[in-house]
Amino acid sequence: MTERKKLILNLFEMNTVSHITHGLWALPGNNRERYADIGYWTELAELLEDGGFDGVFLADVIGAYDVFGGDFSAAAEEGLQLPSNDPLLVVPVMAAATRHLGFGVTFATTYEPPFPFARRMSTLDHLTNGRIGWNIVTSYLPNAARNFGLRDEIPHDERYAIAHEFLDVVYKLWEGSWDDDAIVADRDTGVFADPTKVRYINHEGPRHSVAGPHLAAPSRQRTPVLYQATGSPAGVAFAGKHAEVVFTGGRTADDFRRTAGAIREAAHTEGRGEDAVRFLVQAGVVVGRTEEEASDKWRLYQERTSVRGILAHASSPIDLTAYPREWTVERAAAAAGVPSTTIPYANPKSTVGEALDALRGGREGRFFVAGTPSVVADEIERWLDEDGVDGINLRQYHSFDTARDFAELVVPELRKRGRILERPAEPRSLRDVLFGAGDRIPEAHTAARYRGGANL
Amino acid sequence: MTERKKLILNLFEMNTVSHITHGLWALPGNNRERYADIGYWTELAELLEDGGFDGVFLADVIGAYDVFGGDFSAAAEEGLQLPSNDPLLVVPVMAAATRHLGFGVTFATTYEPPFPFARRMSTLDHLTNGRIGWNIVTSYLPNAARNFGLRDEIPHDERYAIAHEFLDVVYKLWEGSWDDDAIVADRDTGVFADPTKVRYINHEGPRHSVAGPHLAAPSRQRTPVLYQATGSPAGVAFAGKHAEVVFTGGRTADDFRRTAGAIREAAHTEGRGEDAVRFLVQAGVVVGRTEEEASDKWRLYQERTSVRGILAHASSPIDLTAYPREWTVERAAAAAGVPSTTIPYANPKSTVGEALDALRGGREGRFFVAGTPSVVADEIERWLDEDGVDGINLRQYHSFDTARDFAELVVPELRKRGRILERPAEPRSLRDVLFGAGDRIPEAHTAARYRGGANL
Repeated sequence: MTERKKLILNLFEMNTVSHITHGLWALPGNNRERYADIGYWTELAELLEDGGFDGVFLADVIGAYDVFGGDFSAAAEEGLQLPSNDPLLVVPVMAAATRHLGFGVTFATTYEPPFPFARRMSTLDHLTNGRIGWNIVTSYLPNAARNFGLRDEIPHDERYAIAHEFLDVVYKLWEGSWDDDAIVADRDTGVFADPTKVRYINHEGPRHSVAGPHLAAPSRQRTPVLYQATGSPAGVAFAGKHAEVVFTGGRTADDFRRTAGAIREAAHTEGRGEDAVRFLVQAGVVVGRTEEEASDKWRLYQERTSVRGILAHASSPIDLTAYPREWTVERAAAAAGVPSTTIPYANPKSTVGEALDALRGGREGRFFVAGTPSVVADEIERWLDEDGVDGINLRQYHSFDTARDFAELVVPELRKRGRILERPAEPRSLRDVLFGAGDRIPEAHTAARYRGGANL
Repeated sequence: MTERKKLILNLFEMNTVSHITHGLWALPGNNRERYADIGYWTELAELLEDGGFDGVFLADVIGAYDVFGGDFSAAAEEGLQLPSNDPLLVVPVMAAATRHLGFGVTFATTYEPPFPFARRMSTLDHLTNGRIGWNIVTSYLPNAARNFGLRDEIPHDERYAIAHEFLDVVYKLWEGSWDDDAIVADRDTGVFADPTKVRYINHEGPRHSVAGPHLAAPSRQRTPVLYQATGSPAGVAFAGKHAEVVFTGGRTADDFRRTAGAIREAAHTEGRGEDAVRFLVQAGVVVGRTEEEASDKWRLYQERTSVRGILAHASSPIDLTAYPREWTVERAAAAAGVPSTTIPYANPKSTVGEALDALRGGREGRFFVAGTPSVVADEIERWLDEDGVDGINLRQYHSFDTARDFAELVVPELRKRGRILERPAEPRSLRDVLFGAGDRIPEAHTAARYRGGANL
C-alpha cells in the first residue's frame, strides 16, 4: 500500500461569540457565550488534544463591523465578532492544558509595532514548547483603521508593502539576533549568555527602525509557523515569499486549485521548492451516527442561521444591500471607492443580487459535507486526493458539539484509513507536525538568510 | 482588640533570568533559568495561592541595559533582564492554576497604541475573573526608544503627558464604551448585545485618535487595578490622579513617608479621598527556623551577589562608573544630558563615589529583615504600623525558596497576629481584596467620569 496523504486537522476558532456561523450561538448547549471564561479554553483544548486535532486556528479583527446599516447595531445584536477578546492571551491557557496541540493566532502587521510583537510570539513559542503559528493579516475593516489614528483603511497594496517590512524586522529578531548556542547558563562561572553571540539588528526602513537585540532567547521554532489567508494578487506574491501554510475559504475545487496553483508558482519563483506550502480550506462537516441524524442536525443549523448576521459580516468594506440588485459587485465597489478585490465572499463580476442571494443561501460549497462518518471520510479523502487540499479548518456550528462529533465519529474513521496517525509520545513542534522536517524554518525561506547574523 | 492593619503580600517577579538579585540565578536549586517554561509559572502560582499571597507583581522593560560598558555584554552575561519574555502572556497560565491570586503586570504607555492594549487588559480581567492590575510605566531605557523608531528616549515630562492621554483613551474604552447591562444574551430572540448600550468613544487627542467601540464586553473590574512605581515630581502628580496602588523602592522610612505623603496630598487635590491609594514597598526578607539558618542564608546570598550585575542594572540612563568619584550624581547626569531625577538608586546630591559604594554594598535598607519568623513578623508589623506601609513586593533571592520560606514560616506567624486573613471561599476581585469596597474603580477616580458614556 502506498502511503496515504495525511489530513491536517484544525479547529477554526475566534475569541468571540459569533465568529462565522451567525445565529447559532443561541442553540441549546452551545458554549459560545462562555468565550471570555478561562474554562471555555481549557475544556476546548483538552477536547481537541484528546480528539486527535493537530491545532486550533484563531481568527481576529481589531475593529467592529459597522458598515452594514451604517453602524455596529447588527454586529452587537448578533454578537458578530463583537464583543471579542485578544486571541494571543488564550494560547497560554490552552498550552497549559495540553502537550501536542498546535496554535495558529492572527495578528495584523498594519497597526502595531513589530518589536513587542516579536517578543510575544517568542514567549508563546517558549511557553508552548514550539507549538505556535502566526496567521499574518494586514487587516481590512475600515473601523480598525479608525482605532489607530487613521481616517480610512490604508490601501490594500500599501498594507502589503508595510507587511513585507514588518516581516523583515521580525525575521531579523527571531533568526538573526541570537545564535543557537548563545545561552550558556553556566552556574559555576555565573555566565548566562555569551554576548558575542547576541547582536543588535539595527533595522532602518521606510516605516520601522528597530535597534534590537531581540529580548527573547532562542525558542524551539524561532520563527513561528507562518500562516496566511489570501486570494488577491498582492496576497499571492506575499504568500509565495512568506507563507508556510495558506488558508483559503474557496467555495469550489477550481477556486481552491487556482489559488493554490498561483501560490505554488510564486513560492517556486522564490526558490522555496515544490512542497514549501501547506494548503488548508475552511470546511463544514456535520456528522451523525445515521444519515437522518446528520440531516436533522444540518436542518436545525440552517433554520437557526441568521441571514442578517451573514449580510452584516459580508458588508465590509461596503454594504451590498445598499446598491441596486442589477449592478455588478465591481460597479458597487467602484461607486464606494474601494477595490472590488477587497470584498469578501463575492465574485466581482456577479450582480449584487446574485451575491446577496448566494450569501442568503449560506456558504457551503465544495468543502462541505453532512452525513455518516464513512460518508464524511469519503468526502474528506476526495478533498485530499482529488483537490489537493492538505488540511481543514473546521467551521464550528456548535461549540463544543462540532469538535466533539468530529473527534468521536470522524477521527476514528480517518485513523482506520491512514489519514490521521497516532501521536508519538514526545511532543513535536508545530512545524515538524506539518512538514516532518524539524523545528526550524527551511534554509530556502527568506527568514533564514539572517541566521548567524548574516545580512543584518 | 482594635482591628489590625492587614498586610498586602505580593511576590516581585519578572519574566526573565535575573530581575534584581543579580548573580543569584546560579544558586543551587534556583529555578530562574526555567523562566521561559510554562511549568515555572504554574508551579509558582500554585505555591503563592496555597501560601497565602495576595498577588504577583510582574516588572518589565522593553529594551536592553546597554549603557554600562557601552553595550549589553554585562546584561547578557548576567542574564540581567536579558533575555526577557512578555509578562502579560504568563498571567493566563497562572490564572488557570489559581482562583484567588491577583496579578499586577507592567506595560508602558509610551510606545504602543492604546486600543489593542485596552482589549488585552479586558481579556485578562475576563480570564482571571477580575484579578488583574496594570503597573503603568512610561519606560526609561534609551535602548527601548531605539526599538520603536526613536533616536533617544522621549524626555521624562513629555512621556508623562503622553501617558495622561493614553490613560484617557483606555478609560473611555473600559468605562464608557459599554454599559453594565449591555450584554443581553437572549437565546430566544437571538440578541446578544443591546447596541443602544454600546458606543464609539471618538477620542481625538494630540497623539491618539481612537474611534472605538471597545471590542471587549464589560469585565468584572472594567478598569484594572492601577499600579504605579514612582518618585519624581511628574510621577507624583500622575500617581495622585491615576494610581490606586503605588509601589516604591524607598531605602529609608523617611524616603517612603515623603513619597507617600506627596502622593496622598496629590490624590487629595484630585478629590479622591484619604484612603484612595495603597502603598507597597519592595522588601527583602530572609527567614530561617533559627537566627543562624537565616544569617547563613543571607551570607550566602551576599557572597554570590554580582556587583557587576548591580552596577550594570543601575547604569541607565548613565554609566556612573564612567565619571569621577567626587562629582555629584547631578553633575554626572548634567554632563550626560539627562535629568538627574531619572537615575534610579541614587540620590542626585550624593557623590558618584558614594552612590557607587552604596550600590556595591547591596541595597538593603529599612525594608529588609533577616531572622526567625517572629523577628521577621515584628519587623513587618513596624513597617505597617510605624511607617505606614500597606504591603510589600517581596524581592526574590532564590526562586522558589524565597516565596516558599515566606509562605511556610512567615505567613502562619502573620496569620496568628491578624495581619493576614483566611480567604473567603468565593474569589474576590483584586480591587476588592485591596480596598474592600467592591470590584469597580471608585466614583471619585477620574476614570469613572466616562461611565454610561458621559463626557465622551
